[in-house]
Amino acid sequence: MPAIDVAGEFETIERLFRPLAHPEWGRGLKDDVGVLPSRPGFDLILTKDAIVEGVHFLPDDPLDLVARKLLRVNLSDLAAKGAEPFGYLLACHWSGRCGWPEREAFAEGLRQDQESFGVHLIGGDTVNTPGPASFSATLLGWAPKGRAVSRAGARPGDLVLVTGTIGDGALGLKAVQGRLGLEPERLEALADRYRLPQPRLEMREAILAHASAAADVSDGLLADAARIAEASDVGLSIDLGRLPLSLAATAWLETRVDPEASRVMLATGGDDYEVVLTCPPGGEAALKRHADQHHLRLTALGRVTATSGLQVVLNGGPVEVERLGWRHDASPTVSKPG
Amino acid sequence: MPAIDVAGEFETIERLFRPLAHPEWGRGLKDDVGVLPSRPGFDLILTKDAIVEGVHFLPDDPLDLVARKLLRVNLSDLAAKGAEPFGYLLACHWSGRCGWPEREAFAEGLRQDQESFGVHLIGGDTVNTPGPASFSATLLGWAPKGRAVSRAGARPGDLVLVTGTIGDGALGLKAVQGRLGLEPERLEALADRYRLPQPRLEMREAILAHASAAADVSDGLLADAARIAEASDVGLSIDLGRLPLSLAATAWLETRVDPEASRVMLATGGDDYEVVLTCPPGGEAALKRHADQHHLRLTALGRVTATSGLQVVLNGGPVEVERLGWRHDASPTVSKPG
Repeated sequence: MPAIDVAGEFETIERLFRPLAHPEWGRGLKDDVGVLPSRPGFDLILTKDAIVEGVHFLPDDPLDLVARKLLRVNLSDLAAKGAEPFGYLLACHWSGRCGWPEREAFAEGLRQDQESFGVHLIGGDTVNTPGPASFSATLLGWAPKGRAVSRAGARPGDLVLVTGTIGDGALGLKAVQGRLGLEPERLEALADRYRLPQPRLEMREAILAHASAAADVSDGLLADAARIAEASDVGLSIDLGRLPLSLAATAWLETRVDPEASRVMLATGGDDYEVVLTCPPGGEAALKRHADQHHLRLTALGRVTATSGLQVVLNGGPVEVERLGWRHDASPTVSKPG
Repeated sequence: MPAIDVAGEFETIERLFRPLAHPEWGRGLKDDVGVLPSRPGFDLILTKDAIVEGVHFLPDDPLDLVARKLLRVNLSDLAAKGAEPFGYLLACHWSGRCGWPEREAFAEGLRQDQESFGVHLIGGDTVNTPGPASFSATLLGWAPKGRAVSRAGARPGDLVLVTGTIGDGALGLKAVQGRLGLEPERLEALADRYRLPQPRLEMREAILAHASAAADVSDGLLADAARIAEASDVGLSIDLGRLPLSLAATAWLETRVDPEASRVMLATGGDDYEVVLTCPPGGEAALKRHADQHHLRLTALGRVTATSGLQVVLNGGPVEVERLGWRHDASPTVSKPG
């Protein structure tokens, strides 16, 4: 049979992506579709996020890290719902700079994170674009029937907790842009956090068991907390004095003249990919034990109230926040406020 | 609660996409994920295709048609597998030209085709890109457990059939580019076919019941037939003399000096979004009855053989084909060979 040369796309799938396919459900990427058997007793949890060169990643970011970031920003959504990831569909919109070495690096990044997170490729598409590269992934996970955590379950009296540290994503972007004056090891730690988020899947079971509501922190802690408040029709009060900070973020904060504005920046900068969650007071201890076992910080920084909306406080007083969060807008280079 | 202004993306979701959400599984697009209950007895069929401005659609194509084409190229994959579509996830990579009127047109196109095809929005992402617009959709459908048709079931002795007409997609692209000299009504018919493919979902039940293998014709009849041959480990013989042609394609063919090369162009041009399928000889009559009931052509144009690969014939003699199909490559304007 003559070779079907399809401008490199067929070979990209054949050589680079087929080895990543789910052994059964991906149909070897030789079919038009993936086929997923029903799993009685479980709900299928789906999420789809896209990332764009020059907006969500830098034009000179290595493509293996871009691939891993793509998976991780989506895995983070599943983690926040208590879902167990198993597979994904992929759309690659390759730019002119994506030759074979770059595509191979991308596939290698996928392979590494498939192994780290137990997911397999189930299908997708690969196309070329005359513009900057962009990618999207549809991540699939399971949650026990009816038990996936939503944003809508927070109740007055619940605690507000957050995993890990907040603000490193936004500072990491400044670091990779050369806009931060910190020690090299701090800059590196922040850049790592920006380039390679850590989806908090280790909290999955505890979230399922104890969280009344949860969301991942992608647009900014305050924006994502506000959405929980809105979906749950309650209020959330967040104490910026309790923001969990990394050593690097603490070092940065010490260089700032306006600590309040700086904490607001950290809490609205986004790209943290932590989980903000609410739980009844009785659930806190079990959640903390679970986090401790996984060497993960879990910080109580607020309360759910009966009034609606988000209240932000610092040192016992209210803080006015003009913009709760951030989503990436079109711009020729990566830029963020703050 | 302060407004969460997220560079128009939040408002795009709120105003334009929320009305399109699945009433239950989309969680009102207010959560990080969609949640799909298990459906025992059925497999979930998934496909994800992407389209890029300047590659798969023209920069001045109205965005409602672009949205509908996006859904339809994906629905076509489900049709070929005998799957019943019910939902989709969407990623919009908006370019600078996508202001509110364009986004509203895009959402209106989705709404129209949601109604036509019985699908609902379940989730997704909307981002901005400094480059040309691109979009991807992950389409979801059901097929009875274990019965989704694959490319791998063709057996020697089976017939090869194709729905509708072949070549109109490739001619339609020439028509919208002003590269065809035909009567205006012919040009319009071809342009319609390029801009608004017709996924053959009306054949779904008959394909499930009778097809031994099937694929949608997206890259070109010969390329997609060759993939059935490869996946089934058989040969497929296709008679170019039996290509089902529209009136417009017939008129075009009459203007050509080399009918063989012209038929090869039609059979390799792609973008037809018909279904090429194989069936045991006993299944042909039932398939044709079903197609007749839906006023759809269904044409037998070949046989499955025991040798491997694709044989192309015309007037009883073999035809050498250098390139079986076509996938869109990066280029600043839409262009295709032939």
